[in-house]
Amino acid sequence: MNYYWVNHNQTARQELEGGYLWSPKLESNGSRSQFYEFMREARPGDSVVSYAGQLISNVGVVAGFPVSAPKPEEFGNIGSYWSNEGWYVPVSWSEVPRPFRPKLHIEQIRPLLPERYSPLQESGNGNQKAYLSKINSALMNRLATLGQFALADSAGSYEAVEPEDITRAIEDQIEHKIGEDESMDQTEKEALIKARRGQGKFRRNVEKIENACRVTGLADARLLVASHIKPWRVCETAAERLDGANGLLLSPQIDKVFDIGLISFKGEGEIVVSETLSKQTITSLGLLPALRDGVGRFSGRQCEYLDYHLKSVFLG
Amino acid sequence: MNYYWVNHNQTARQELEGGYLWSPKLESNGSRSQFYEFMREARPGDSVVSYAGQLISNVGVVAGFPVSAPKPEEFGNIGSYWSNEGWYVPVSWSEVPRPFRPKLHIEQIRPLLPERYSPLQESGNGNQKAYLSKINSALMNRLATLGQFALADSAGSYEAVEPEDITRAIEDQIEHKIGEDESMDQTEKEALIKARRGQGKFRRNVEKIENACRVTGLADARLLVASHIKPWRVCETAAERLDGANGLLLSPQIDKVFDIGLISFKGEGEIVVSETLSKQTITSLGLLPALRDGVGRFSGRQCEYLDYHLKSVFLG
Repeated sequence: MNYYWVNHNQTARQELEGGYLWSPKLESNGSRSQFYEFMREARPGDSVVSYAGQLISNVGVVAGFPVSAPKPEEFGNIGSYWSNEGWYVPVSWSEVPRPFRPKLHIEQIRPLLPERYSPLQESGNGNQKAYLSKINSALMNRLATLGQFALADSAGSYEAVEPEDITRAIEDQIEHKIGEDESMDQTEKEALIKARRGQGKFRRNVEKIENACRVTGLADARLLVASHIKPWRVCETAAERLDGANGLLLSPQIDKVFDIGLISFKGEGEIVVSETLSKQTITSLGLLPALRDGVGRFSGRQCEYLDYHLKSVFLG
Repeated sequence: MNYYWVNHNQTARQELEGGYLWSPKLESNGSRSQFYEFMREARPGDSVVSYAGQLISNVGVVAGFPVSAPKPEEFGNIGSYWSNEGWYVPVSWSEVPRPFRPKLHIEQIRPLLPERYSPLQESGNGNQKAYLSKINSALMNRLATLGQFALADSAGSYEAVEPEDITRAIEDQIEHKIGEDESMDQTEKEALIKARRGQGKFRRNVEKIENACRVTGLADARLLVASHIKPWRVCETAAERLDGANGLLLSPQIDKVFDIGLISFKGEGEIVVSETLSKQTITSLGLLPALRDGVGRFSGRQCEYLDYHLKSVFLG
């Protein structure tokens, strides 16, 4: 279990009311930020303290896996320089019984702050560059004492959020926008909306390239899922959403772990598996033969999408 | 591939416009009817001629597997004596280029009619008791000649309907009704709606009884589906929808085939598999160990629900 501290900055209200954290994946200049990389590392059951308006007044439990997701609509014009693509982490927030200003207790807090990527400056003011910081259990326990909140309690009392529930909500919004887009005709709209469920034109395009699940060998079309490699919700163009090279035919259980980012593939046909999958799970999912023998080489165009999946969906 | 003839009787408009067939599962006196059993046997790609108002004016292709489904809302008061529970078969209908009255051609048709469960009487009038009848290819070809429709054409030109698309539409209607039901409080409504996706109270109830997929051994809670044995959409009470004994924890691919009715279980722990699953599919799904060793005995209360599944969901 890990402990985190979030400096919400401008989006505190949206994130606390909405029950989540969201950050772009990259800085606006395209470089990596460790404060955003921590988002990808968050796991269900981890604790987060929320810092906003110079106060710690909420504490949360991570309620589900990080998901690649566009910037929430309710941010409006906030962070208009941010890339539209980011990490979404569902969080079950509770109010801290005694909200407090960390700056007033900085002498107690300073020795426990992380050396790098600290949420606070030495002075006790917030670090403007920080978003999500990883903190140690000693600091978290000190904060719990100051705010009179019980960490164990909060960790036991959340309801898990399924990744599918998050992506469904995001996809519903996108589907609604597609429906209202006057630049497309009805046939085009239907093809895009069917692609969301791996159906219609997208599926037929995938079936021209793939004919069975590369992992389990399943070839029964009634049971195979036409799964996007670069997720439907983050595709930037209609062409990407319908591109047969952006799809694989997968068994339902393989679709599920590929979609969450618990497995991925390298271009030459190697399957990579998240550290969080136990040996028993790997066996039960039917991954052993593919781990031993590979899943076959992918085409150049498939590799471009797989590169995205490895970098931006796979959780490691 | 099989050929069918439907006497829509009172529901022709709804079924032709809606793209489906629906029948109750049993006669109103509770006895079996072969005309309803044929519904269960329909398979994607089968052909159906539609007989309504003494005319054959439509021909269709079965577009998906039969699904257990409540009586369509748009039937209104028609068939109020029918049980609410029935078989739903999606059909892609086309108009027959030259609609015709079979009675006018009864001399040609009579010798080709099935001996039992015929859609027409010897006189050429419709058989009032018939709903779906199975006919032979000779009769289907004669009808195609009379109506000038091409069977091969219609079979090639339909888009497959996923069982999930059908059940989603039905479940959306039920969810809407639950939302409007003033006899329940908000907490109860939410528990029922979450149960639809195998979440919340229902899932916790199932987890008190089951702890892993009985078929594959998968024990990773993040990947297991809490699947209803008696489908959520045909449960008659809130208690059935939330009953832990009405659920199993299944791997995603096992949930899928159990839900469609391509596998089922007997009380003593035997897995039964539809004839339509090939050996290769059985292997790829990871069913072999469970077929050899069984999946463990079920409790008495689980057996009651499994009995329903075997009789009313399993497609054989």
